[in-house]
Formats: sequence, structure tokens, C-alpha cells
Amino acid sequence: MRYIKDLTEGSRIGDIYLIKQRTAAVTKNGKNYLNVILQDKTGTIDAKVWDPNSAGIDDFDVKDYVEIVGDVSSFNGALQVSVKRARLAHEGEYDPSDYLPVSEKDIETMYKELLEIIDRTTNTYLKSLLQAFFVDDTDFIARFKFSSAAKMVHHAFVGGLLEHTLSVTKNCIFFAAQYPALDRDLLVTAAICHDIGKTKEISPYPDNDYTDEGGLLGHIVMGSEMVSEKIRGIEGFPAVLENELKHCILAHHGEFEFGSPKKPALIEAVALNFADDLDAKMETFTELLNKSQNPKDWQGFSKLLDSNVRGTRLE
Amino acid sequence: MRYIKDLTEGSRIGDIYLIKQRTAAVTKNGKNYLNVILQDKTGTIDAKVWDPNSAGIDDFDVKDYVEIVGDVSSFNGALQVSVKRARLAHEGEYDPSDYLPVSEKDIETMYKELLEIIDRTTNTYLKSLLQAFFVDDTDFIARFKFSSAAKMVHHAFVGGLLEHTLSVTKNCIFFAAQYPALDRDLLVTAAICHDIGKTKEISPYPDNDYTDEGGLLGHIVMGSEMVSEKIRGIEGFPAVLENELKHCILAHHGEFEFGSPKKPALIEAVALNFADDLDAKMETFTELLNKSQNPKDWQGFSKLLDSNVRGTRLE
Amino acid sequence: MRYIKDLTEGSRIGDIYLIKQRTAAVTKNGKNYLNVILQDKTGTIDAKVWDPNSAGIDDFDVKDYVEIVGDVSSFNGALQVSVKRARLAHEGEYDPSDYLPVSEKDIETMYKELLEIIDRTTNTYLKSLLQAFFVDDTDFIARFKFSSAAKMVHHAFVGGLLEHTLSVTKNCIFFAAQYPALDRDLLVTAAICHDIGKTKEISPYPDNDYTDEGGLLGHIVMGSEMVSEKIRGIEGFPAVLENELKHCILAHHGEFEFGSPKKPALIEAVALNFADDLDAKMETFTELLNKSQNPKDWQGFSKLLDSNVRGTRLE
Amino acid sequence: MRYIKDLTEGSRIGDIYLIKQRTAAVTKNGKNYLNVILQDKTGTIDAKVWDPNSAGIDDFDVKDYVEIVGDVSSFNGALQVSVKRARLAHEGEYDPSDYLPVSEKDIETMYKELLEIIDRTTNTYLKSLLQAFFVDDTDFIARFKFSSAAKMVHHAFVGGLLEHTLSVTKNCIFFAAQYPALDRDLLVTAAICHDIGKTKEISPYPDNDYTDEGGLLGHIVMGSEMVSEKIRGIEGFPAVLENELKHCILAHHGEFEFGSPKKPALIEAVALNFADDLDAKMETFTELLNKSQNPKDWQGFSKLLDSNVRGTRLE
Amino acid sequence: MRYIKDLTEGSRIGDIYLIKQRTAAVTKNGKNYLNVILQDKTGTIDAKVWDPNSAGIDDFDVKDYVEIVGDVSSFNGALQVSVKRARLAHEGEYDPSDYLPVSEKDIETMYKELLEIIDRTTNTYLKSLLQAFFVDDTDFIARFKFSSAAKMVHHAFVGGLLEHTLSVTKNCIFFAAQYPALDRDLLVTAAICHDIGKTKEISPYPDNDYTDEGGLLGHIVMGSEMVSEKIRGIEGFPAVLENELKHCILAHHGEFEFGSPKKPALIEAVALNFADDLDAKMETFTELLNKSQNPKDWQGFSKLLDSNVRGTRLE
Amino acid sequence: MRYIKDLTEGSRIGDIYLIKQRTAAVTKNGKNYLNVILQDKTGTIDAKVWDPNSAGIDDFDVKDYVEIVGDVSSFNGALQVSVKRARLAHEGEYDPSDYLPVSEKDIETMYKELLEIIDRTTNTYLKSLLQAFFVDDTDFIARFKFSSAAKMVHHAFVGGLLEHTLSVTKNCIFFAAQYPALDRDLLVTAAICHDIGKTKEISPYPDNDYTDEGGLLGHIVMGSEMVSEKIRGIEGFPAVLENELKHCILAHHGEFEFGSPKKPALIEAVALNFADDLDAKMETFTELLNKSQNPKDWQGFSKLLDSNVRGTRLE
Repeated sequence: MRYIKDLTEGSRIGDIYLIKQRTAAVTKNGKNYLNVILQDKTGTIDAKVWDPNSAGIDDFDVKDYVEIVGDVSSFNGALQVSVKRARLAHEGEYDPSDYLPVSEKDIETMYKELLEIIDRTTNTYLKSLLQAFFVDDTDFIARFKFSSAAKMVHHAFVGGLLEHTLSVTKNCIFFAAQYPALDRDLLVTAAICHDIGKTKEISPYPDNDYTDEGGLLGHIVMGSEMVSEKIRGIEGFPAVLENELKHCILAHHGEFEFGSPKKPALIEAVALNFADDLDAKMETFTELLNKSQNPKDWQGFSKLLDSNVRGTRLE
Repeated sequence: MRYIKDLTEGSRIGDIYLIKQRTAAVTKNGKNYLNVILQDKTGTIDAKVWDPNSAGIDDFDVKDYVEIVGDVSSFNGALQVSVKRARLAHEGEYDPSDYLPVSEKDIETMYKELLEIIDRTTNTYLKSLLQAFFVDDTDFIARFKFSSAAKMVHHAFVGGLLEHTLSVTKNCIFFAAQYPALDRDLLVTAAICHDIGKTKEISPYPDNDYTDEGGLLGHIVMGSEMVSEKIRGIEGFPAVLENELKHCILAHHGEFEFGSPKKPALIEAVALNFADDLDAKMETFTELLNKSQNPKDWQGFSKLLDSNVRGTRLE
Repeated sequence: MRYIKDLTEGSRIGDIYLIKQRTAAVTKNGKNYLNVILQDKTGTIDAKVWDPNSAGIDDFDVKDYVEIVGDVSSFNGALQVSVKRARLAHEGEYDPSDYLPVSEKDIETMYKELLEIIDRTTNTYLKSLLQAFFVDDTDFIARFKFSSAAKMVHHAFVGGLLEHTLSVTKNCIFFAAQYPALDRDLLVTAAICHDIGKTKEISPYPDNDYTDEGGLLGHIVMGSEMVSEKIRGIEGFPAVLENELKHCILAHHGEFEFGSPKKPALIEAVALNFADDLDAKMETFTELLNKSQNPKDWQGFSKLLDSNVRGTRLE
Repeated sequence: MRYIKDLTEGSRIGDIYLIKQRTAAVTKNGKNYLNVILQDKTGTIDAKVWDPNSAGIDDFDVKDYVEIVGDVSSFNGALQVSVKRARLAHEGEYDPSDYLPVSEKDIETMYKELLEIIDRTTNTYLKSLLQAFFVDDTDFIARFKFSSAAKMVHHAFVGGLLEHTLSVTKNCIFFAAQYPALDRDLLVTAAICHDIGKTKEISPYPDNDYTDEGGLLGHIVMGSEMVSEKIRGIEGFPAVLENELKHCILAHHGEFEFGSPKKPALIEAVALNFADDLDAKMETFTELLNKSQNPKDWQGFSKLLDSNVRGTRLE
Repeated sequence: MRYIKDLTEGSRIGDIYLIKQRTAAVTKNGKNYLNVILQDKTGTIDAKVWDPNSAGIDDFDVKDYVEIVGDVSSFNGALQVSVKRARLAHEGEYDPSDYLPVSEKDIETMYKELLEIIDRTTNTYLKSLLQAFFVDDTDFIARFKFSSAAKMVHHAFVGGLLEHTLSVTKNCIFFAAQYPALDRDLLVTAAICHDIGKTKEISPYPDNDYTDEGGLLGHIVMGSEMVSEKIRGIEGFPAVLENELKHCILAHHGEFEFGSPKKPALIEAVALNFADDLDAKMETFTELLNKSQNPKDWQGFSKLLDSNVRGTRLE
Repeated sequence: MRYIKDLTEGSRIGDIYLIKQRTAAVTKNGKNYLNVILQDKTGTIDAKVWDPNSAGIDDFDVKDYVEIVGDVSSFNGALQVSVKRARLAHEGEYDPSDYLPVSEKDIETMYKELLEIIDRTTNTYLKSLLQAFFVDDTDFIARFKFSSAAKMVHHAFVGGLLEHTLSVTKNCIFFAAQYPALDRDLLVTAAICHDIGKTKEISPYPDNDYTDEGGLLGHIVMGSEMVSEKIRGIEGFPAVLENELKHCILAHHGEFEFGSPKKPALIEAVALNFADDLDAKMETFTELLNKSQNPKDWQGFSKLLDSNVRGTRLE
């Protein structure tokens, strides 16, 4: 497909785009028309449907994928599409990842890596639990792979939740090797499950916004309850182990003020909090520098990092 | 029964007491004996079993209720019981409330009052939920009536959880009448359920200490999950209503720093937080003055009330 | 009268309006004219006096009530009044409550309710004090009834101080019934007097802004001193009672950071703090939802409630 | 007189002491006697009255000054007085400053210095106010000179309030010379009056404890109201000036958390806060080093100074 | 020279200005021209060079001082210079203080005052240190005199660092006289050196922005290290004295949260913190009132003073 | 040697011990003797020198290593040594690590590991700096190996600084592999140097207490200045690189409140803060559980971990 960032004045397009916005308007002469914003992963462009009710203009709505035929012109210094035809596209005709911010890493590769880690878990109860989520529950798996890890801050892209989870899990595997007091199985399981509540807290793309349930309960409590539910299906899962695992999830933000209802009481909960926070900070810093035009200059105050920051020069 | 605070030197006792502590010891001559602490709601007294293995001395353990026959003597200025016979008592022979701090209000009367409030709930789903806990679940009812509302601070006595819950609920009924924006049914249901997690967070008397599960998860999250479980048994319970109710429970401490994973987002959650906090503060202040010998003098700094306090004089 | 929100292009008006703003201006041709903003409780409208010194144009100033005769036209998409005649109105010709935001409850009814509560006070000193303010001091009564409870946040309308005071007082009456440790007379008196300093801290409508004295001293200290002054006129008022009452007023914000110079040391001061804070929060939440077009959607972050909030759905 | 710190075993005493404590007791043989603690400014000593009702033993109470005749013996390694005769002393027979911690500076000299500063005030209203307190109000003057500036922290001695006030005032005189934006008269008047409420907040020596009124209202609000009262007697005192002066007093602790109901809004209030805080910190540090045996070593953590501290060595 | 604030439409200018900004642009007709902003201490004005490469237009850059010949016209309601000729000026042709905000006090006079204070230091090591900076190190002296004390807040003008340093030092001299526990020499030396790191933390005018080193290390640590370096050149400088002096510098912000790595542990460090903070607050308040058109009205909330403020009226 | 914990009543000893305390005393009969406390790494024991001036009793002092010949007896239920002979031991006769708490890991092995990491550094300037400290500066190396990482909290044993430094460095090596935005050389160098200031902040064992310099300046600033000094000896060391390295050291505590004068502004500084804090928390938690008799029970509140904690059960 031709991406929006590559469109030029005078060209004609005939591709599928995501509808980001759609509002009815009236010209000075009293004629109805539509203001539309088309989106793909490279950006957005304004479009006008001057004859909304004509043949060839399907009815469509925000978040629909629509095949647009139209001409690109320039208006007030910005490009604009005059829509000639518009047809609702069917699932399968398009690849959503062309229309949304998406992880730079391959989602399936990361998922496979996660499965291998699950496979190396030795505690049978914890392994069963992880498989119940990541091997058996296809709905969950689909949501998990597609979800971002946040609405706006870090890992705010398709695959972001998986990428963040995998990275936190790798940190935990290293920590378990470095600090013998840590139980590897408990820590790794907690790492893999720590943000599963986000599959319900944040709506799928292109929305990627807080759900009503997410706003009322939050991913920490929702994740803990998802673990409870899955464990109900695993015979003999020890109660203490269940509580320890749920504790790690509840405490993974480390501080009350960040929404954890419990402070870390187990050494694995302390380690998970570090692994999660480190990954969030590293990704936030990296995304900030990647977006900057002069990353080696001072970037001003970053609220997330709570400091003035700049990229390292190493001159 | 004769209460411990009324025992006198030279008398003989023959009543049932709760065993608070039991440790084996050896006299200077190498003879085995037992150090025991007997308890009732008026206090404790040391006791010695000089001949632990003789006939007439049943085996008993901490938290058992035991009929003690023995003589009261004075040793080093304190009274002491020399145990002649000891027999494990059966449930029914004694009334636990004679041995434990207990609400000054009648537990059954308070429970009946709570049932009447439940009966007046008009929303059928919420009413079903309340009945599932407080009418149908006899195990839960027994634990709820017997539980304290805290390990140490306010309402730390048998029936304390019921007394506190009823009082918070009455506050909420008044608030709902006073402020029309409040939904009475949701608020009253949330009030009745707000501390049900404490039946699992705190072990039953005479222990009255944090359980392991309580230490790891906390009554806020446990209460929310108990609601989820009960709702699973109520056909058609609306998802939004479930989330709103659970939100009120999760947010009832009002602030992250007090262990709520969510700040109150619904007006009923705000009101519940006030009703709960007010009752805790009023009871704390009242207990403090009741315990004081000179309640109208300055009592020094109260950590719970975060202030120097004194009883009102109104001279 | 015809309210500003109902004016239409091409109509002629002849009603009394409040002058919100008045500035002299000069046309491009060098002719003097006046820019005026007219206000009533439904909104504001721009007006022009093209011939300021002509007969029929009285001299008037900001905050005056002025009968305006003029024509409504449209300019740059907004309505505008061309003023033909303007005459200063006399008190009595207009009802100030038509020009200002005003309580939805009837002020005289609320005042009567307050007097009945005062009448039920049994402590003669406290009753005398309340009567000295609310029965005998006609200036105070007039200011109290007319005042808002705040510049902007909650109860920011004529009668707001009375409405808030009455509501806090009712909360306190309920608390005193619910918690026997509370002294009803002291608590009710403190509730009625807790915000009397606002009659001096905030200037009367249409200003409704902080006075200079208010900015320097604050309503908490001013209210305490107003109580001192009135008590000087009551023979035999006990010193301890005076101090306890003033303490309740000084401590009613509950925390140093909210401007209370003392933390609540008496149980009545604790209860008053709850009654006041609860009423403020309930009204804030209610006003927020009333103003919202979609109250059952998430409303974003409310600084006053320190949380994301939404109206309850109860689906 | 012979000071308590100089008493030795075997000597006989015949001097006036302050009675710090007095409790009735019974010997093992059933005989009544009195336990008494004698105090002077150098320390305390236990005393026994073995024959309380005998001739020569006047009735006396705590805080009385009593002439004691008795013998000093050693008991359990500590000195003790066996009282033979005890006679209530009259005012005039003793100098209270021999019995209490007292400023090292001469009180009358400091008072004179303060009067000279008052004399140099040019604003007639402020000068009248200062004279109304420090020249005309003999009761106030007596209390002010005798009062400490605190129960325990810094300047906790007779004359401490005067010494602290004078020192803060001198700081302010310097600041007014250094920073032209400061109004000298307002600042100096505020400095002299800033702690006058302490004459009522803290009871006179030998008590030197918070009064009930002090605990309920605090010296900040009490001082502001004392100023209001005095101003009522000064014809024509401008209202704005009164408010500005009272604001300086109310805001002199600088922060809400230190009990100021207003943050400094005038530049004089900012300066007064510095002058007061500086004097408190300098005196606290100096007293701490004076009490230390090794002032040039690290003294551990000082809660008041919120730091580990040591005396300067300057080697 | 004719200052920018005095330029009028239609006049011709021929003076030296500082180039604040310079950007190349293209007219609609495709012709190159330059957008320039000229600056002096009274303000800025837009200028256009329509023929950048013509004879008479030297090449110049931002921060250059350039003699501009041109005509002042009005465009869109603002004045604008059309540049006819532009010539780089040489040092000596202009006085930088005409182009930059500058202290109202004479820099050389203040410097002389500082030297006199240094001269009165009696400790030979400290005096040597001060002379090494302020007498012998001409580069340092030049930077110190020219530097501001801040990028934006108080004393943000040429000579500001010297003015602030002198004022803090005078405060300290007074404190040392007032409080005998203070060592005058140590305190005065610390006062003079407390902000020397700012000569490296902030770049010279017209930049007056944080340097890279300043952003990474901060003036507190840089100043401490500058002292270490100078002391290396003074034989026999006692180690303890060096540490005490450096401690005063490190602790002069008083609180960790203001960037001090140590809390004040010496009484001189406490005093220096007051002297510095007082001067900053007095100057901030004074600058705020000086800039205000109605200084005696309420000025709104000042973030630096953390309060609503107004000028004193003293009516 | 025979360790103190293995001494028994009635035995004779003849080994070298460290003198922890020494005080002169007098018997009831007026005879001089010495109270001494002997220490080795297993504990302490009281000793008496009844005849201090006799032949065979060398003069010795606190922190000396002394060969003691004496008899072990029992007094008041505790063992005690009656010293017959005492001889100052020479360095070489004893191994200090027998007398002090010491790392469980071999110090030389850890040091070798550190050297290998240094060897793998590719930036020549950073490598030179690390070698200047850890290869060339034998005094520094000796102090570094022998030092603890803290007075009391975690790693408070000989070799603790090395063990902590190595562990933090390994964390950083992993982070650099995991997060490509991190510069490995800068991060590893900062990790190795982050606590070098502790060699001066804490006095060597057996003291292991804060030095005077440490109390005044702190290891963060001291470490930064030690780096400055070493860099002065490395020709061509880039200024920006020096500042970036010193920034990482200054910011490694992450927050102002923990004594860092700068918040982390570089991504390497963020990572170092995590690596350091993680190691401290893991070691604190591990030491806490190692010291506990029932590590799987709740351990109560840990101030360092700011939470109630327990060992993981994994039942």
C-alpha cells in the first residue's frame, strides 16, 4: 500500500485506510459534506466527501477500515484527499499492523521466546498456570499479543505488552541467577503474569484507551483476579503458592502511591518491582531520545523520569 | 463463673478458663512441671501444673478451654494457681464471650438490624448478593459475627466487625437521604460488604492476628474477590454494577497510602470512605477516653488521631 | 423580564440588567463611545453606547443595575445591544437574584430551618451566642444569607453559605445522635458558626471575590475572632466553653495544610471536620455531574476530588 | 543560699527551696510520711518528712517556696534530706530566679533595650500599640518578662521570651536597613508582638507547661486576638494596618505545617519568619553545644535541626 | 545611543545593537532575505535584511554586536527595521551593559566592598584562599563580576552574582556579630564562596543559560571542587578547615530536595543557609513588586514565594 | 586459634585477641585494675587485669591486637577471663579477618574478577582511569578491599565494599547487554567507581564508623572529587566524558532525599541507580532472612525495606 507519509499533491489514491474521525459539515452554500481523517501507521491526512449520499460512498464509521479512492490536492499548505469512492473493507483485506504503531520486534518471535521460558519452569503448578494462559487460552493470547503496555507513556504500540513482559521476564531470570535468595520459578511466573490485567484495562487498538472496568478496578487487581480464576481450574494448586504469586502481582508497583495495595513483602516481589520499573524507565528514556531531533542536547524536563535529561555524548 | 479479676489468695477455683500460654519447665531439682497462663475477659493469671502427667490432668494446648481445679496462692506479690485437676471442656460448656473482649452491644440484635437493612434493598441483584453472604452462607455469617474489626486499633473485640459494619451502614443510609446524588442501594451494599475481607485477613479469637493470606493480599483485595465469587452464583448480575460495587470496596480507604489501589471515582465511593473513616475515628476517640482515668485532661499525642487530644469539658 | 439567554437578533429590549463591565473607547473616526457588558443570571451580552453624552443616557458604573432600552443585532457572529437609553434603576425595581447565581433552595426557608435548630439548643450560653448572631444582628444576617460559600469551588452562589451551613449542621445533628460521645450543643453551635468568617472573607455579589482582610487573615481566624467579640456581650459565658468552641472553628479544616492552625483535639472538632468536608465533597461531585453533558462517562481528573471520576451508571 | 548541687553528705541545711513534688506514703510499719522533691535552679534532691504532723512542719504544697531545716544523708548512693522543720516562705524572702532556669542576660537590661526600640518607632499607631502592651499593661509586662519562649526546646528559661523577642527584633532592624523594600515600623512592631500569645499559651514557672487555652487555640491565634483587643483602645488605628500587622503574626511560622493559618503574603511577614526561625535555630544549636561535654565531636542526630551536627573545630 | 524602546515609525537608525536571533527566509517570489532580532537592554525589535549579499552587509551571527543603519516602519501594528547597512562592531565600540540587564548598583563599587571584607579576614588560610580567587585569579574575577546569579529567578542580570554574594556576606557579618557561637571568618569565607560554582554553571551573557557541565554537576559540587583546587596551592591549609568550608558550601541550600548533598551540620552552615535564602526571597519579592503595575494590589500566586502576595499598604 | 564462642569455664587461653574496650577501675579495697573487652569475629568476652602494672602486662590500647594468657571462669552466669600475661602482637602474627566480620566470598577472587572486567573496557580513557585506581594505587586498593560498604545496614563487613561493587557492576554489564541505549564502558566504569568515596567516608575496621570528613562531605561528593584528581593525571581525558562519569556518581542515589545533588540525567545514571539500589535491597533482604530463626514466618516491619516481610515458603 501507499503510506500516507508518501502521498504527494496531484496523485490519485486507491488504498484501504483506517477512519480516525468523521464529522458532518455544511458548506457556505448549505450543501452537506463530510470531514474525515484517514490514518495509517505513518500518519494522518484530511479528507472530504463532498457528496456523502452518492452511489459509491458506503456508510462507514470511526474505526472502520475503508477503501478510499480519491485525489490528493493541496489546501492552505496541507495535503487533502477529495474522496470519490469509499467502500468498507472486510477483515482479511488489510493488516491492522499497517495502520497502528507497532513493536519493532517481531511479535511471533517474542511470543515463541516467552513459550520457551514457560517451558523451562520446573514447578508443575506454576507451569500449568502459565500454560493455561499462554498456551491454552487462545482469546487471551490474541489480546495479549495485540495489546500495548500503556495508553501513552512507554511501550504504547501493538505488541508493547508482550515486548515489555518479555523484557521484564529476562531481567528476572538474570536476577534469579545473580541472587540465590530468589526463587526462579515464582519470580519468572510473577514476571510473565504481572501485567496480564492490562489486556482488560486497556481497550484494543485503534482505541487503546482505558476501559470502564479498567478505570474502576485497575490492571493490578484485575490481574490478580484473573490468576485466581485460572488457578480454580488447576487441581491441587497450593494455597500459599497462590497467595505468594498474587502478592507479587499486587505489589509490583512497589509503592502505595503507584496503586499497589500491598508493599513488597517477599524478596521476589521486591525483585519484580525493580525489573518492571527498570524496563519502563529504560524504554521511556530510549523512546524520548529516539523521538528527539538532537538527542545529545538537553531535552528539558521529563515528567516520567522526573529530571532534566540528555543523551550521552561520550565525546 | 468466677472471673479472674475477682480471685483472692487462699480460695479454691473450679471453673473453665482459656489457655493463653503453656510452656514446659524444670524445677531446680530436675522435676518437670508446666507454666500456664489462664485467661478470661477480665484478665490473666499464672498457673503451675506441678505434676503434669498425673491422673486428672488432661492433655491440653494453647487456645483450649479447660476446666481447672486448683488453689490460689500468693507468690512474689502476685496471685498464682496451683492446678490440681485439668479437664478439656466441650463446646457448649462455656461461652467464648466470657473469655474474650466482646462488643457491649448484643451481637444477635445487631445482626437482625443488618438483615432488616438488607431486606429494604430494592435492587434485586444487590439484594441477592447480600443475602448470599448474610442469609445463606452460614460459615461466613459465623465468622463475620465473631470477628473483630482490627487487630489492635478500634473495634478490637468479638462482634467488632459487625458493630463497625452496622454503624458505617447507618451513616451511609443517612448520607443517601441527605444527598440525592447518592444511590442508596449501591451505597448500602458497599457499606455492608466493605470489610468482609477482614473475616479472612484476621484470624478468629483468641488469636485475632493477621493471617498469612491477610498479610500478603489484604482485606481490600480479598473482599473484592469474595464479591466476585458470590456474584458468579447470581445469574444475570450486570457487569457494570459488579465493577461499581467492587470499585467502592477497593477505594474505601480513600487514599493510595492507606492501601486502596484506586481513589474514589464514584460519588458512592467518596461517601463510603467518609462513613468508614468517621466511624473509625469516633470509636478510636471514644475508646481512648473510656480507657483514660482523667478523660477531661489532655491525653497526650494520639498517633491514630494525629493530634494531642482531650475530652470535652463544657464547664 | 427577558433573560439574556433568550434574546434574539432584531429584537428590542427594555429591561433592567446588571453592569458587569464598562470601558470608554474611541472609534476609528475619533468618536467617543462606551463598551459595556450586561449581565443577568443566565449570562452576559456586549452592548455599545454610541452616544454617551446624549440625553437619556444616565451616568452609570460597574455593579449598577440599569434599565436598558436598545436593539439587538448580530456582529461577527455574536449578539450585541445598541443602547438607546439607559437609566439607573432603584433598589426595589429589580430582584438581585435574577442577576446572580443563586441557590436552588429557598433562602428564607433555609434560614427558618436554621432558626429552629438554634431554638432547640439547650445550653443557654451557646443559645445566646447563636441568637446574638442569627436573631439579633441584622447586618450579619443579611450578609450571611446573601453570601456564597466560596469564590469558585462548591456552593459558589447567593445563599450558598447558608445552604452549606445548614447541610453541615444537619450532618452534625445526625452524628450527635449516632455517637453518644459527642456533645450535641457544642457540635451544633460549632457547625452553625464554622464558616461565619466567610461573610468577611468574601465580598458580596456581584463581586464574590476575596477581600483584602480575607486574603491577609482568612475566614478561620476571622470567624474565631467574631465569636470572641459576640461572647464579650454575653455575661458569664464560661471561658473553657469559649475556648472549646473556638477550637472547633480553628480546627475545622482538619489539617495544617488546609489552613487550620490547630489539629482537632476534641471529638466534636473531629466530627465537624468530617461534616464539613463531606458536604463540600458531595456538593463538588454533584455540581460537576450536573454541569457535565455526559455525566455517566468518565469526566477526567477532578483536582478538587483528586481522582478521575464518573457518574454512577447502575446498569 | 547553698545550692542543691553543692550539698554534701552529713551537712545540715537551712534554706528556702521550691517544692517540685509532694506525695503521701506509708512505711512498712504503717507510719505516714511524706516524699518530697526540693528544687532550685541547680537541680533537685529527694527529701523525707518522717513526722508530717509534728510541730514545726507547716502545711505546704507543690510550687510553694518553703524554708527547710534538715540533715543530708546518703541512701542507695544518692543524697537525701531528712526534714526537721518546714516553714512556708513569704514572697520577698526568696528570689524566684534562684529556683528556676533563667536567662544569662539581665532581664531589666533587655527590657530597657526593648523600650528604646519601641521609642524609636515613628508610626504613631504602631507606637501606641506597643506602648499599650509594654509600657502601660503592668500585668502583661510582668508575665512577659517572666515567661519562657518554649516548654522544652530553645529559650526554655525565665526571661527566655524576652530574650528571644529582643533578638528577633534586632534581626528585623538589621533586615530593614539591608532591604529597603521592608517597612521598618511594621516589621519591628510585628517582631516585638510575634510571640506575645506565649504569655497565655505557656503557664508561668515553675510549671512552664501548655495551658488548656494554649492547647486549644495556640499562641499564634491568641497573639493575633490580643492585638485586636489592644487596638480597640486606640482611636483611629487604620483597619488595613491592623490587618497587615495581624497577618505578620499569623504567618510568622512560615508554613501551614508549623501551625500558621496563612503563608507570608507581605514582604515583612517573610522577613519576620526568617528572623524568628534563625534565632530559634541559632539558640538551639548553641544550647546543644553548651550542654555537650565534647562539643567539637559529632553530637548525633538533632531532631530540631534535622541533621547530624557537631561543633566547629577550625583546626 | 538611541534605545529600542524609544524608536518611532519613520525614523532612521544608525547604532550598534546585539543580534539576538538570525534566520534565513525566502519571500513568496523566491528571493532570499534575513529575519533578524535586534536587542538592547530596553527590549527587542524585528529587522529585515532584504538584500543579504549586497555590499555594505557584513556577515554576522547571533551574539554579535553589529552597527545597523536602517529605516523604522510599521508592519501589522509593530515596528520593524529595514536594514540598509550592517557592520560588525569591535570590542570597545560598545558597552555590553547597554545591551543586557544589569545590576542597578555599580559593579566596581561592590567589588571593592567585597575586597575590603576579604581584607578584614583574620584567619590567614581563609584569607589566602579568598585572595587566590578574588585578587589573583583575573579570569575568575572577570567571570564573577559579569555573571548573573540565576538564569531566570532572582538577580538574573549582569553583576547579579556579585550583588547577591555581597548581600549574603553582609547578612553573615551581622549574624556573626549577633550570635557569638558563629565563627566570623569561616562564615564570611563560606558566604563569599558559596555560589562561585555559578561562574561555571551558567554561561556568560547574552546567553545566561545552563552550561552542559552545570546541568550535569551543578554549582554546589562545582564550587566545592573549585575550592579544593585553589587550596592545593596554599601550603599548610588545614584539612579540617578545608572540610568545614566545603561542608558549608555543599550544605548551603539547606535541604536535600534543593540539591544539597549534605544537611547543615555546623552552625555556620545553618547561618549561611539562612543568609542565602533570605537574600533570595527578599530580592524575589522586591523584583516582583517592582515589575508590577499595581504593587499594592494582590499579585496572585508566586510560585517562588509559594504564596499569594501583595505589596504592603500601610494605609 | 580458639574462638571466643568456643571458650569454656575452667580452661586456660593463650591466643591473640583484639581489644575492643579498656577502662581503668578500682576495687572496693582501693586496688587499681583494668576492665577489658576482648573481641574476635565470633563475639566478645569480658576480661580483668587485676595487676595492671606487674611484669608480663604490656601497655596496650583499644584496637590493639594483644596476646592474652589467662584463665576462663564464670561470674554472675557469664564467662570472664582473668588475665595473667598480655603482650602486644606484631602485624603478621595475626589475621585481621579472624577478628572482624568478613565477606563469605574470597576477597582476592573478587578482586581478580574486577580486574578482568576492567581489562575488557574498550574506551582507553576510562580504562586508564580504572587502572589508575585499581591497578596502580596500592594504598587505595588495600583500603578498598578491606572496607565495608556501610556502617550498619547491608554489606557491613570486611570486603563488603568490594563485594557490593562487583555485584553492582555485574548488574550493569547485564543491563548494557539488555538495553542497547546504554553505553557499556561508561556504565561499567561508573559502577566500579560509584562507591569509591566510601574508602574515605568510613574508617577502617575495627572502627568501621563515619570519619569526620565523611560526615561533612559524604562519599558521593568525595568519590566525584577522587575521580577528578585521578583524571588530572591522564592526558587528554575528554572534559565531557569526565562530566558524564562524575554525573553518574553524583546521581547514583537517584533522589535528592537520598543525598544525590543531581537527579539522573543520563540513561547510564538511571541504570546505575537501579543496579545499586537492587543490590542493596537484595542483600538487605537476604541478611535479614539469614539472621532470622524462622525466616519463613513474618519478620515484622523492616525499616530499610519499608514493609512487613517474610521469607518465601513456596509450599
